[in-house]
Amino acid sequence: MSSQPIITLLTDFGQKDHYVGAMKGVILGICPNARTVDISHGIAPYAIPEAAYTLSQAWACFPPNTIHVVVVDPGVGSIRRPILATAGEHLFVAPDNGVLTMVFDDVATHDVREITASGYFRRPVSKTFHGRDIFAPVAAHLAAGVEVEKFGIRIRDFQRLSFGKPVQTGPNNWSGRILNIDRFGNAVTNFASSAWPELVTGAFEIRVRGTSVTHFSRTYADAMIGQPFVIPGSSGYLELSLKEASAADAIKIRPGESVDLSWTAL
Amino acid sequence: MSSQPIITLLTDFGQKDHYVGAMKGVILGICPNARTVDISHGIAPYAIPEAAYTLSQAWACFPPNTIHVVVVDPGVGSIRRPILATAGEHLFVAPDNGVLTMVFDDVATHDVREITASGYFRRPVSKTFHGRDIFAPVAAHLAAGVEVEKFGIRIRDFQRLSFGKPVQTGPNNWSGRILNIDRFGNAVTNFASSAWPELVTGAFEIRVRGTSVTHFSRTYADAMIGQPFVIPGSSGYLELSLKEASAADAIKIRPGESVDLSWTAL
Amino acid sequence: MSSQPIITLLTDFGQKDHYVGAMKGVILGICPNARTVDISHGIAPYAIPEAAYTLSQAWACFPPNTIHVVVVDPGVGSIRRPILATAGEHLFVAPDNGVLTMVFDDVATHDVREITASGYFRRPVSKTFHGRDIFAPVAAHLAAGVEVEKFGIRIRDFQRLSFGKPVQTGPNNWSGRILNIDRFGNAVTNFASSAWPELVTGAFEIRVRGTSVTHFSRTYADAMIGQPFVIPGSSGYLELSLKEASAADAIKIRPGESVDLSWTAL
Repeated sequence: MSSQPIITLLTDFGQKDHYVGAMKGVILGICPNARTVDISHGIAPYAIPEAAYTLSQAWACFPPNTIHVVVVDPGVGSIRRPILATAGEHLFVAPDNGVLTMVFDDVATHDVREITASGYFRRPVSKTFHGRDIFAPVAAHLAAGVEVEKFGIRIRDFQRLSFGKPVQTGPNNWSGRILNIDRFGNAVTNFASSAWPELVTGAFEIRVRGTSVTHFSRTYADAMIGQPFVIPGSSGYLELSLKEASAADAIKIRPGESVDLSWTAL
Repeated sequence: MSSQPIITLLTDFGQKDHYVGAMKGVILGICPNARTVDISHGIAPYAIPEAAYTLSQAWACFPPNTIHVVVVDPGVGSIRRPILATAGEHLFVAPDNGVLTMVFDDVATHDVREITASGYFRRPVSKTFHGRDIFAPVAAHLAAGVEVEKFGIRIRDFQRLSFGKPVQTGPNNWSGRILNIDRFGNAVTNFASSAWPELVTGAFEIRVRGTSVTHFSRTYADAMIGQPFVIPGSSGYLELSLKEASAADAIKIRPGESVDLSWTAL
Repeated sequence: MSSQPIITLLTDFGQKDHYVGAMKGVILGICPNARTVDISHGIAPYAIPEAAYTLSQAWACFPPNTIHVVVVDPGVGSIRRPILATAGEHLFVAPDNGVLTMVFDDVATHDVREITASGYFRRPVSKTFHGRDIFAPVAAHLAAGVEVEKFGIRIRDFQRLSFGKPVQTGPNNWSGRILNIDRFGNAVTNFASSAWPELVTGAFEIRVRGTSVTHFSRTYADAMIGQPFVIPGSSGYLELSLKEASAADAIKIRPGESVDLSWTAL
């Protein structure tokens, strides 16, 4: 481990309560030289897919050996297991509820363990705040140099969610869905930009909730005010946007919504 | 002091303004190796009881010698005093408005000083932002190794609030109140879970705003959707919750609300 | 550069998405000992004047050699240039859209360069997230010790906005505007307090949206509940406030609103 190990935090705890601060306090008590970095605490309560997407966009920006702690955990206190995963030289500590699915989709070689070594937990372990009592202390002990193997044995039956890869529904038609809406109202689809490199050179239409989007722009600045457009986003996916306004509000789209794409080469 | 002293920040400054950043800049200018950690900046404006509760839940998670700065300060610029307290091997810098009350309730042995050593203040001292001009620089000088005694003399007439310990109102009846509502809508009462270890083995009812709660669960996952229940929370208090929904919204409870508990051994 | 260089971040990215976390990951990957400090991520989307004001209030609180990264960037991906500025022993990395105007207003001697050295960028550079791909990595390379000159040549035609210095409109009349509304509803005017040291010793009136404010207080605590008043704020400007309530809501003021001041010596 580095002399200043990095621990990222991604939760649905919001900003008003003591929850995030308590986790950081626990971490610093165990590993004084750890550096905590917030990815987000604004995940909608219990929104596992939103957390999975957010993690997938952030984790690989960090250097190797970063420890990512994810606590979006509606099953806290139940039999759902805490897990520790290794993927792409990064470490992940999370509940076993599928929140790491997109990491596993991106990194074929991953190692997942059930965390059972309760000697590394904070005592007593509450039934409602494993962020403070299990996930934070486990991450801190990892940062302090405890080997991955010490926390529990490998498992293969961990949870994975389906994020609905786009499905081809006709010779020129594909069905996908909205992965995420960001603060600006950009709606991220699950159509990978790399799969549609010639989108704009053909005739295309994206339909969502009765709205048809047929304009394309590579930048926000070049788009026309008031006209929704498709843009290859920084996410790696096609996004629906509106210049200096919220496409999601205009089209009334929410995460999970289905989206249809048609494309014909000219 | 440690080589990387920790300074936590708890304010009602919100996230949109420069206020928190300005405090961190002042701290780093005085003590470059200090590490600042946010507890919350989402305390409702001027809500001293909410800040007192949030601090009480977070401070003891941090290691000894942590310096906690609390700035919820409707009296800024008036004759209310800035204070520096030592309790349980932690340090607290705050306005003398009762915001440290729950710390003093938890740690019988505490030392409280009026901060008068204006040589440690930022110049000029504004009348409206003592977070930047008094509390941050005092915390930073503490972190840099200045002894507690240098900041002012001990006082005994500091403010303490009453957080309304539950009152027994009948052979089987107690009256308490709601200490806090968290992001998820969990309503924290001031009934300590440890005082009611056998709650669920008797007949109990919690009444608040005309709603009667008679169900109990040790975890969120085991509860029934749509049915409010009592849970011994991670706070150490009995909480009113609703599975994957906001109990506070459903029952329309706000902080400060009174709550009645009846309990009869079976 | 210091052994733990400071990089501040000021954006309109909000708190819910991965954007800020991704920037911090990129920074730590390039300069592991950098310390990132949030000034705000709650700037209203695309609100360049609000960001300029917020930066102007925060930057000088930090120690010399701090690197300030500002990403409020509606023109991302277009021909607007990324710039690197040096002013008052601080460094600034931002889009060339006027967001640094108030820094340049405060520090007459400044050096501004167009950032063209794409070898310091993250690859590939997206068209929509220069925070991650240009501004964060440039700041991190600066923090790691790369000299300012390496990033590009000096320019003189960078953007500056007009923040509408107050204009005298009559022997006893001045016209100004609202620079900012803070979380508490304090409305910051662009009338510098230092320009009106004798305000309260004369007859004065501030008019905004049909409301006349003629009361004055040096502190919030001394003001009367329900009565808007003028206060020399911690910002260095005259502010309109309401004790423990939002003046902006009460008077219905928004940033940019014009404000008229009349003052007659007694």
